[in-house]
Amino acid sequence: MLRFIFFLMCLLQLRHTVLSVTEAVTAKPIIINGTYINPELGKYHARLRTLARSCLDIKEKNNASQDGMYILTTESGTYYQAFCDMTTAGGGWTLVASVHENNIKGKCSLGDRWSSQQGNDQNLPEGDGTWANTVTFGSAEGSTSDDYKNPGYYDISAKDVSVWHVPNNEQLKSWTSSAILRYHTESQFLTEHGGNLYHLFKKYPVRFGAGQCKSDMGPSSPVVYDTGDKDSTANLYGPSVGKEFESGFITFRVFNADQAAVAMCSGVKPTECNPQHYCIGGGGFFSDHQQCGDFTALKQASKHLTQSAVLLFYR
Amino acid sequence: MLRFIFFLMCLLQLRHTVLSVTEAVTAKPIIINGTYINPELGKYHARLRTLARSCLDIKEKNNASQDGMYILTTESGTYYQAFCDMTTAGGGWTLVASVHENNIKGKCSLGDRWSSQQGNDQNLPEGDGTWANTVTFGSAEGSTSDDYKNPGYYDISAKDVSVWHVPNNEQLKSWTSSAILRYHTESQFLTEHGGNLYHLFKKYPVRFGAGQCKSDMGPSSPVVYDTGDKDSTANLYGPSVGKEFESGFITFRVFNADQAAVAMCSGVKPTECNPQHYCIGGGGFFSDHQQCGDFTALKQASKHLTQSAVLLFYR
Amino acid sequence: MLRFIFFLMCLLQLRHTVLSVTEAVTAKPIIINGTYINPELGKYHARLRTLARSCLDIKEKNNASQDGMYILTTESGTYYQAFCDMTTAGGGWTLVASVHENNIKGKCSLGDRWSSQQGNDQNLPEGDGTWANTVTFGSAEGSTSDDYKNPGYYDISAKDVSVWHVPNNEQLKSWTSSAILRYHTESQFLTEHGGNLYHLFKKYPVRFGAGQCKSDMGPSSPVVYDTGDKDSTANLYGPSVGKEFESGFITFRVFNADQAAVAMCSGVKPTECNPQHYCIGGGGFFSDHQQCGDFTALKQASKHLTQSAVLLFYR
Repeated sequence: MLRFIFFLMCLLQLRHTVLSVTEAVTAKPIIINGTYINPELGKYHARLRTLARSCLDIKEKNNASQDGMYILTTESGTYYQAFCDMTTAGGGWTLVASVHENNIKGKCSLGDRWSSQQGNDQNLPEGDGTWANTVTFGSAEGSTSDDYKNPGYYDISAKDVSVWHVPNNEQLKSWTSSAILRYHTESQFLTEHGGNLYHLFKKYPVRFGAGQCKSDMGPSSPVVYDTGDKDSTANLYGPSVGKEFESGFITFRVFNADQAAVAMCSGVKPTECNPQHYCIGGGGFFSDHQQCGDFTALKQASKHLTQSAVLLFYR
Repeated sequence: MLRFIFFLMCLLQLRHTVLSVTEAVTAKPIIINGTYINPELGKYHARLRTLARSCLDIKEKNNASQDGMYILTTESGTYYQAFCDMTTAGGGWTLVASVHENNIKGKCSLGDRWSSQQGNDQNLPEGDGTWANTVTFGSAEGSTSDDYKNPGYYDISAKDVSVWHVPNNEQLKSWTSSAILRYHTESQFLTEHGGNLYHLFKKYPVRFGAGQCKSDMGPSSPVVYDTGDKDSTANLYGPSVGKEFESGFITFRVFNADQAAVAMCSGVKPTECNPQHYCIGGGGFFSDHQQCGDFTALKQASKHLTQSAVLLFYR
Repeated sequence: MLRFIFFLMCLLQLRHTVLSVTEAVTAKPIIINGTYINPELGKYHARLRTLARSCLDIKEKNNASQDGMYILTTESGTYYQAFCDMTTAGGGWTLVASVHENNIKGKCSLGDRWSSQQGNDQNLPEGDGTWANTVTFGSAEGSTSDDYKNPGYYDISAKDVSVWHVPNNEQLKSWTSSAILRYHTESQFLTEHGGNLYHLFKKYPVRFGAGQCKSDMGPSSPVVYDTGDKDSTANLYGPSVGKEFESGFITFRVFNADQAAVAMCSGVKPTECNPQHYCIGGGGFFSDHQQCGDFTALKQASKHLTQSAVLLFYR
């Protein structure tokens, strides 16, 4: 009785496909002979099958090797899409955020979500608080043209970060080839700080007056370059500031001489007290209001740098 | 012929699981022996199975008892996720909005989506119009750190509201335990006003000059406390204003002595004409520009109150 | 052996429906006798079955005839919902954007996403750059109350556009009946400009100083009216400007006498050099700062026009 094999067209229903069905609430076949009638639905289901908490999970459980948009879930069950880099150094990188400067002369104005959009204001020492809260905004496909932050930023439990500097307005398919700087950490430094930047910045608040230059510098990790190197990194920040940092690192939460806080020094570790010239993001107050903004006071930096978005990945 | 039982692994396809399938458009099994290969997908499908117009629908049709993120649909077929409180007073509460003050000194500035982001302006008597339009913004998981409004606000047909005052930046899993004030109505007052606040505020516009203090006060309902009580409510608004309202109510659309409109008096019913001291949200113009903003002029209120987001639920 | 017909309850699992299953990761039936237990899930699956790159794809492959929200995907695999007009002139129109003026007196201020939100600024000749980037914002159901742009704007490969002027705050179900002006092109002009407005505006930048009035006017196409006609179009822009354009066209990227750029002249083709009086959207700088904004300087236009959102469809 059980010796024959069933090749039944099944997914949504087992009725024969010749039966006509018209009402929305009636099931319809979506697969014939093991192939999706609608290939786009097949692709969607393929993405849904790998649903996980991070791109690394997807990589490990499904041996996925294609870069692209995948479907993730937070611990609380919020579903969202994210870009996965499945290539760089073994892959498994989730894009969780981008820092984009929409107006280099705007000073903590509209669009400065990674510092403050409320103007330079001593009453708001943490500014918008984006580095240490669960607010999300933007989209992966728009992340080189606007600020971006998805739930992975606070939800994923990660060990390392990867950073891409991609020229503004580049489309997703061109990110890798157009990036002017790409690197990642291998030190697993995030494991000591709660597993992601959300927790790291809870521990090291990006808040004016919360510490001193040098003595209160946050975590720093050496980086491995994927595009560019130590010298090209230094060149991007301009000749006049090259002696104020050491290339080949990524550093978080640094104070300047006035106790103003910046969030992230991409590619460098400060050795002096003017991080506003080579670090990005920040709190909501700077003694010199000209320094307030997502790209703080990177005026001496190369336009290649200031006109590129900074994409943040976790693994 | 029909006497044997089929235990076939079916969901996406009926092929034997040993067959290898590689193309995205080819179906793959997702269930083996009645269990999901990928548990996260199982959780997602469980959420999808209860798809409904509101958390109350989900509660009633599925006997769901877990608080958390569920999947909802509007009448027009827009799908979205929302937080359901399945516990309080029988459960079935949908989180539809939060009012968050990002800058208590900002006056109808960026972030004041529940009053006006255009500055105090007599030409914009309704301000952003958020209380009575279908604009949505923010996310459930970020709703204690930023304003939030989902399609349920205008789409769900409800009878009662529930309100939680949750300290800023608290994460979803801590909302219940950290809330400083929680209450709900049982009067079914929304049934007389179109079934939700969108319709209520169409009827009672939050517009400067549209009415007078006292004579044109909108609907008010007694509340049942879940955290706190009448006295703790009064204390939150500060000692100097306690004689200007009666605790134990929620009241909508109230004018002050200058005909400026506020949207919601959480926990109280005004008896005098200074609602800006204990009500939130509003139109786009106040004779005293200092009163313009999401948290109007709650300066005398406790910091516990002004530094908490106000979460709105429907049932 | 194969002569009997299988009516098996299958979708999520083949177990008999009488078996109780409680864990989320265990499959449950969703269909009984070919009908969805949860009709809302049936509607959702019906939408998912037609997943495609555009409403036209859906129309052609599924013979869909109902206006409403459908599910689309970008080339990169970003899934989103969009409103499809399946009725007008054969249907297959995807709503990809809306231009909404939230404050006619605000000049390149918050909410002017289709020109600039940074104030009138010569340093930002392209303003926010929305016409030629992949940033998305807003929602279909809120598109008459706020600016809206979905991934279809840059992802869909289209031939024609359709434009609806719908009074502010009208709900989706009333759009068609309440529209004051509706028209579409049949010239397939988009095929010469990259298949959508994103590519068209890459070719014809909306940037101050990038060209001259008349000599550098972008593409124009005749239109076919669905609501209104040439005369009613002219009337909407006011009596004093009627001699400065020809009705019955849609025109893109036009400069005024000061080299300021506007993005779209809805229903008209300029013949003189004051497009700011009858065109919308623009760059980030105008010699007269009063002209900067989503609805530029439409002050002489009818309130019916300035208080309506402009909905853009592709086919």
